[in-house]
Amino acid sequence: MSLAIEPGDVRAAAERIRPLARRTPVFTSAGFDAEAGTRVFFKCENLQRGGAFKIRGASNLVLSLGRDALARGVVAYSSGNHAQATAIAAKHVGVPATIVMPEDAPRSKMEATRAQGARIVTYNRFKDSREAIAQSILKETGATLVPPFDHPMIMAGQGTAALELLEETGPLDALITPVGGGGLLSGCATIGKELNPTMRIFGAEPEAANDTFLSMVAGQRVAVHADTIADGLRTPKPGELTFPVIQKLVERIVLVSEEEIKAAVKFVLLRLKLLIEPSGAVPVAALLFHKLPKEIRSVGVVLSGGNVDFEDLAKY
Amino acid sequence: MSLAIEPGDVRAAAERIRPLARRTPVFTSAGFDAEAGTRVFFKCENLQRGGAFKIRGASNLVLSLGRDALARGVVAYSSGNHAQATAIAAKHVGVPATIVMPEDAPRSKMEATRAQGARIVTYNRFKDSREAIAQSILKETGATLVPPFDHPMIMAGQGTAALELLEETGPLDALITPVGGGGLLSGCATIGKELNPTMRIFGAEPEAANDTFLSMVAGQRVAVHADTIADGLRTPKPGELTFPVIQKLVERIVLVSEEEIKAAVKFVLLRLKLLIEPSGAVPVAALLFHKLPKEIRSVGVVLSGGNVDFEDLAKY
Repeated sequence: MSLAIEPGDVRAAAERIRPLARRTPVFTSAGFDAEAGTRVFFKCENLQRGGAFKIRGASNLVLSLGRDALARGVVAYSSGNHAQATAIAAKHVGVPATIVMPEDAPRSKMEATRAQGARIVTYNRFKDSREAIAQSILKETGATLVPPFDHPMIMAGQGTAALELLEETGPLDALITPVGGGGLLSGCATIGKELNPTMRIFGAEPEAANDTFLSMVAGQRVAVHADTIADGLRTPKPGELTFPVIQKLVERIVLVSEEEIKAAVKFVLLRLKLLIEPSGAVPVAALLFHKLPKEIRSVGVVLSGGNVDFEDLAKY
Repeated sequence: MSLAIEPGDVRAAAERIRPLARRTPVFTSAGFDAEAGTRVFFKCENLQRGGAFKIRGASNLVLSLGRDALARGVVAYSSGNHAQATAIAAKHVGVPATIVMPEDAPRSKMEATRAQGARIVTYNRFKDSREAIAQSILKETGATLVPPFDHPMIMAGQGTAALELLEETGPLDALITPVGGGGLLSGCATIGKELNPTMRIFGAEPEAANDTFLSMVAGQRVAVHADTIADGLRTPKPGELTFPVIQKLVERIVLVSEEEIKAAVKFVLLRLKLLIEPSGAVPVAALLFHKLPKEIRSVGVVLSGGNVDFEDLAKY
């Protein structure tokens, strides 16, 4: 069975998204390296437009649409970074965006999405189906759905983070990203393995949202009830398209505890002076708490986002 | 009367400190610009080695010492970033550093200084004179004092922050830095006015530590009892060498309240994803709360440091 994307799709995405996505910097920290016992290269997607890597995938899909499809607008359902990314991409091309969000989504994320000119449709997480709401909007308007991860254009777009990182660092022993639905990991693995076939690829998941870990063990997609502070990784199971890529290219999913995630947020804040959100701290925690094989001497890690409510920081 | 430093001293410092100080990145933020009503270029000294610009001055002085002087070691008195910077510079050249610190200095800063191999001598802030303690160590050991600001090598070293910033941005309408003892501001003003004679230079001070503001008004150095969360700016009065430079080259000292400082720390954290310390947030607050003349369309600002205790963040 052929996989949903190829390395060439990631390269094409890199060209396509150039007007919209920032080429984020790569940071290093001698203090972090000493703690982790390996050289670490941080791809700072927390400094990306919209505060997360999500703009890469969303803009890759939106910028690939034909004029007629574009004119009918785009729809996304997300309570977080993907919503804002879709709104930014739609605004850039001047088309209407409708975002379906839970009515109890963080005010800050709702405001940020509205500030991009998107129409927000709220639903009750306990009563309504966001898919049904999105479907009815799609039917009404003929708009295009921008899914959060399970789409070749999204996967290819997210992979550009690894492409840029590896262009800057050259060959590395390993690459690690967080895993929610698997869009970022599958895209990064696809381009990473082409650029550097011996590089070992890892995903990092919270113990409390270990659906991809369990799916890898089971050899098929398993759903869990995800309950973690890493709100970007609460997806119940890996995607239909992303999972086969992960199965083929990723060595292992490593798991971290909630306490380890919090410690990683703090370490990066106090030592690297960078704000990352808990989801982005998951692979950092994996390095800080030595979850990767010892012989790995250099690792690239995607700091996937930096959108945190200030009040939540005090809890870490 | 000739001033303590000339632009050539800053250029010489830039060469001298290259092995020790990082060339920090310059950040921009469309969101911040919209809020401030002007284009802002952030020189990220919070990402500097030791977490603050202080390494520039300390290493400029330490690296200029002859072999014999070096062998006798260096001494600094400081409870904060200058202590760590002096320790880093001394370690780099392999000479002993003694740092005189108040016994109630933040644990984190004491630990960071000790981690650089420095000897720490503590004193009681309410009973002992740190100058007297430092003098007795100097007498005993023949070591060289590395003063925090009032020395031509320190002033020239700190000025390299503006040199690098302006090399990157080209001409700007204005430049603003925080003012404690005036080392950073005097150095930056000296090189800034040479590179761009029409550029307007501003200093930013807490209302609660407005010694340089009052000194500018009085036309002579005035001391105040400084009491501000911007702990790096608690110096009671401007330096003997720094003040004449500031008088000649700086248009005005702008003042910000404690609440404005806290708001600036939060804004930079949540929107730029960067941790800055309250002292570094003082000029940011000046921009955010529109304290500069309206006609200024582009401003460079030195984010002077990022060393904050995590527990203190919750108070913002």
